[in-house]
Amino acid sequence: RVDGERLWDSLMQMARIGPGVAGGNNRQTLTDADAEGRALFRRWCEDAGMTMGLDRMGNMFMRHEGAEPDLDPVYIGSHLDTQPTGGKYDGVLGVLSGLEVIRSIRDMGITTRRPIVVVNWTNEEGTRFAPAMLASGVFAGVLTEDYANSRTDADGKRFGDELDRIGWRGDEAPGARPIHAMFEYHIEQGPILEAENKQIGVVTHGQGLWWLQVTLTGKDAHTGSTPMSMRVNAGLGMARIIEAVHRIAMEHQPDAVGAVGQANVWPNSRNVIPGRAVFTVDFRSPDLAKLTAMRARLEDEAPKIAADLGLGITIEPVGHFDPVAFDPGLVETVRAAAERLGYSHRDIVSGAGHDACWIAKVAPTVMIMCPCVDGLSHNEAEEISPEWASAGADVLLHAVLDAAEV
Amino acid sequence: RVDGERLWDSLMQMARIGPGVAGGNNRQTLTDADAEGRALFRRWCEDAGMTMGLDRMGNMFMRHEGAEPDLDPVYIGSHLDTQPTGGKYDGVLGVLSGLEVIRSIRDMGITTRRPIVVVNWTNEEGTRFAPAMLASGVFAGVLTEDYANSRTDADGKRFGDELDRIGWRGDEAPGARPIHAMFEYHIEQGPILEAENKQIGVVTHGQGLWWLQVTLTGKDAHTGSTPMSMRVNAGLGMARIIEAVHRIAMEHQPDAVGAVGQANVWPNSRNVIPGRAVFTVDFRSPDLAKLTAMRARLEDEAPKIAADLGLGITIEPVGHFDPVAFDPGLVETVRAAAERLGYSHRDIVSGAGHDACWIAKVAPTVMIMCPCVDGLSHNEAEEISPEWASAGADVLLHAVLDAAEV
Ligand SMILES: NC(=O)NCCC(=O)O
Ligand SMILES: NC(=O)NCCC(=O)O
Repeated sequence: RVDGERLWDSLMQMARIGPGVAGGNNRQTLTDADAEGRALFRRWCEDAGMTMGLDRMGNMFMRHEGAEPDLDPVYIGSHLDTQPTGGKYDGVLGVLSGLEVIRSIRDMGITTRRPIVVVNWTNEEGTRFAPAMLASGVFAGVLTEDYANSRTDADGKRFGDELDRIGWRGDEAPGARPIHAMFEYHIEQGPILEAENKQIGVVTHGQGLWWLQVTLTGKDAHTGSTPMSMRVNAGLGMARIIEAVHRIAMEHQPDAVGAVGQANVWPNSRNVIPGRAVFTVDFRSPDLAKLTAMRARLEDEAPKIAADLGLGITIEPVGHFDPVAFDPGLVETVRAAAERLGYSHRDIVSGAGHDACWIAKVAPTVMIMCPCVDGLSHNEAEEISPEWASAGADVLLHAVLDAAEV
Repeated sequence: RVDGERLWDSLMQMARIGPGVAGGNNRQTLTDADAEGRALFRRWCEDAGMTMGLDRMGNMFMRHEGAEPDLDPVYIGSHLDTQPTGGKYDGVLGVLSGLEVIRSIRDMGITTRRPIVVVNWTNEEGTRFAPAMLASGVFAGVLTEDYANSRTDADGKRFGDELDRIGWRGDEAPGARPIHAMFEYHIEQGPILEAENKQIGVVTHGQGLWWLQVTLTGKDAHTGSTPMSMRVNAGLGMARIIEAVHRIAMEHQPDAVGAVGQANVWPNSRNVIPGRAVFTVDFRSPDLAKLTAMRARLEDEAPKIAADLGLGITIEPVGHFDPVAFDPGLVETVRAAAERLGYSHRDIVSGAGHDACWIAKVAPTVMIMCPCVDGLSHNEAEEISPEWASAGADVLLHAVLDAAEV
């Protein structure tokens, strides 16, 4: 078993970097806080005898050597970046549990045949630079480096420039590494495990996702002196499309979700009818047909809503992945490890996207989940217990030792 | 008649201060650009022999002496502040036409019995610091100085601190001045005069207004892994209330308008269900019963919409005035001046709020309007013709000379 106290202590130390306003974290990708978190993680890994590889996307590959260095390594990866009002565990648990696995292996004097590489994937959250899982997407060959470098944040800053600015761009070409197996351990970010009192989620599938960005163009005009009949109100159009997104998701129940997370109007003044609105749509389903249908429905309905109000509309896809099935052999490895350790478990579908969803395209991949309180995530109040954290890390340890061949 | 070319030239010079991004202006109240605009106006007035009074709200009173200095002066006032994406004429036309009236009187060698005071009222727009017409409201005794000084902008900066910072707080107690008559000349900001091809609007009434600020409190949560049934989506609540505001205004047709101008969600992230939404409601009507009914309807419906979604709600009134009837004698003075000058005119109700609406509470007051292209205002593309501008200024000159007794 891993050292649960040491793992918890590392989580708490990392959480001091980029603190949030309500007990969580704001350590968004490619900020100064992200750089500081990376430096701490690197120091910890090097103290544990690991060596760093760094690719041109800023993905950090911390290598623990195996008895047979030429064998394809086993990977453990997740992300250290957070939401603007994020929790202390989303992503971080997976990276620091990877480190804890190495620390435990060293303590126990175990040698694996295969090397083990613990990865921090850049920009998993996708809030500052859409889409999510950007750098693992480039690694998997689904997205190009040029595309990633040119993504801009709300202030117009480019991903590539910000990566250079914080000094975490490496030389390695992204995607060149052979991977024997990749494990990602993550909090569930949903309510199921806690509700059913299970310690471990054996993740068999991941939901697919469509992210769309909608821009409505109307006409700014005075709220007082513009007759109702002369208004071209982009804010009203946004309201109707937010409602449509919700309705479309409800009509595809069960196994479908949809919401608008970002919503902005211009000029955002009390006495000006909004002349422009820009907002984001997030549709997800484990069922490809439903996922495709929801996007198609919105692309059919939203232009009608816009036309009805005299608004111009553009709908731009800014993120997508199909539902994923994880590697059946590795799923069985994880299930067996949980069983062997005596942890209660169930199979589960990941509601969120994860770097593992991209890596699954290029290597055998699987995920392990632990419960989180009230299923709450992407919220500073996100919480897990030290026991939940270490149970999942124990399963990770056993599964990785299996794959890395002791 | 006034010197229309000189008036237009002054308008264009003022528009160079605090330029917008699309040909209009961003000279919001109590910014450095506001200070620069004030200084230019003061210099022009002093060049025309006027002397400045400045009250503790930053209201500028530029006095042109009369033959009988002890008589109550005639006032001409409007505002130099603009919307964040505002036009070059909203407010500015009224202030600079006041200056042009004085310049013309001097050119013609006319002496009036009464002094004439040209006023720049502080923070008419109310975008940066709600409510609108803040400093004329204090002058009229409807709002207190403490209330005004404590208003904050989106960055939490206080009105009082910003007024001190730009160096435009005077010593004079607001409201102490006797006013024989007050004239405000303004662009219509609506489509009626242009559509009916009238040069002059004789403003008989002003619409009443309610500004409300709504805050919805839900729970930020992950857009992917939170089941639809567990969501407490403040953005969805905002969408439903934006729709309700529109519907309520439509149900009170004619003579009623309503819209949401500012709309913000938190944390405003693509993959986070908004846990908080703050937005503003603007209802107006020239009919007090309708105005009151619209507010009451929203205060009845919005909490039901919130409750239905499990959201907390607060609705705070942040601005209000009742419909106004302007002084019948001065209305006749304006109508007679337009008639005498041979300008086409019609009676009109002001759709927007104006400083004149507050001053009407403490002194005989009236407004004069000129058309604006497409009725567009609170938009950088706001446009008027030099001929429209000077026709209204001619009417202002004649009406003021009448009131100031030549
Ligand atoms: N796990 C997680 O929150 N990833 C961010 C991408 C997503 O929105 O699913
Ligand atoms: N005239 C004008 O736009 N005033 C601002 C206050 C209002 O919104 O009516």
